[in-house]
Amino acid sequence: MTGPAKAKKIDHLSFVVEDLDEALEFYVGHIGLEVVKVEESELHGVKAAFLRSADVMVEVIQPLGPGPLADFLERRGPGFHHVAFEVEDLDEALAATAEAGLRVIDTEPKPGIEGGRISFLHPKSTFGAMIELCDKKEFERE
Amino acid sequence: MTGPAKAKKIDHLSFVVEDLDEALEFYVGHIGLEVVKVEESELHGVKAAFLRSADVMVEVIQPLGPGPLADFLERRGPGFHHVAFEVEDLDEALAATAEAGLRVIDTEPKPGIEGGRISFLHPKSTFGAMIELCDKKEFERE
Repeated sequence: MTGPAKAKKIDHLSFVVEDLDEALEFYVGHIGLEVVKVEESELHGVKAAFLRSADVMVEVIQPLGPGPLADFLERRGPGFHHVAFEVEDLDEALAATAEAGLRVIDTEPKPGIEGGRISFLHPKSTFGAMIELCDKKEFERE
Repeated sequence: MTGPAKAKKIDHLSFVVEDLDEALEFYVGHIGLEVVKVEESELHGVKAAFLRSADVMVEVIQPLGPGPLADFLERRGPGFHHVAFEVEDLDEALAATAEAGLRVIDTEPKPGIEGGRISFLHPKSTFGAMIELCDKKEFERE
C-alpha cells in the first residue's frame, strides 16, 4: 500500500533557531554534521546553514525579520520546524492530496530556499506535524 | 570539522499522536511510507508503528498511559517529537557530550523500543530540539 504523494525519501529536516552561529557550534561541533553551505536569503528573509547527515540534509534557520518562522519561534520557541519528503512531481502530489481532502498551506508550489519546488501541508491534516512536500524541478514564475 | 558525538546518520524521526490508526492513514495512505511493523510495548507504555522512508525509519507513537510522551502530547499537542542520530558507540558519545558540558536527560544508555541503546540530550543544550543519540549495541542491564 503506497499513498498518492509517494514520498521517495526524506529530503531534509529543518530546525529554527534564534542564533545560527551558536546553533552551529552544537550541530557541527557536537553532533558532527558536515557543513555544506551557509547563506543568507533575502527572498526568504533568513540566514540558513545546510548541513549533511549521510544523504539527509539538515537545515538550521535563523529568521532575520518578521514572518512565519519568527512567529513560530515566538510561539513555540526554537527547535524542530519541519520535515520534507521528496516526491517525483509536486503538482501530481498536490492534486492527489487535494483529491484526498487534505488541507495544504501552499496550494501552488513555491520556490524552495535551496531551489526546487515546495508546498507545506496543513498541520490539521498531518496530526500536528509540519510536513513539506518537495520536488527537484525548477520553479517557474507565471 | 566533526564533533565528538560523530553522528553516522539519521536513524529515525519520531512523531507522537493521539490515535495511531488514524495517523497511519495519513503516513501510509497519503505520504506513502512503508509499514515495517506495528507493535505495543509494555515496557515503554506505547503503541508504535515503524515506517520506512528510504533508509530512515519513521516512528509514529501513541502513548497508552501516563508518562513523558503523554505529558508532551498534553503540553504541545501531537506532532514531531524527536530525531535520532546513530553513533558508533553511545558510551563514548555520552562521555564526549559530558566533557563538552552539554546537558543530557539520560546520563546512562537505556534500551530503545526497537532494541539498541539510546540517550536523549536535554533541549537546553540543543537549541530546543529533542535529539536522541543511539547505537546498535545490545542493552545490558547491570
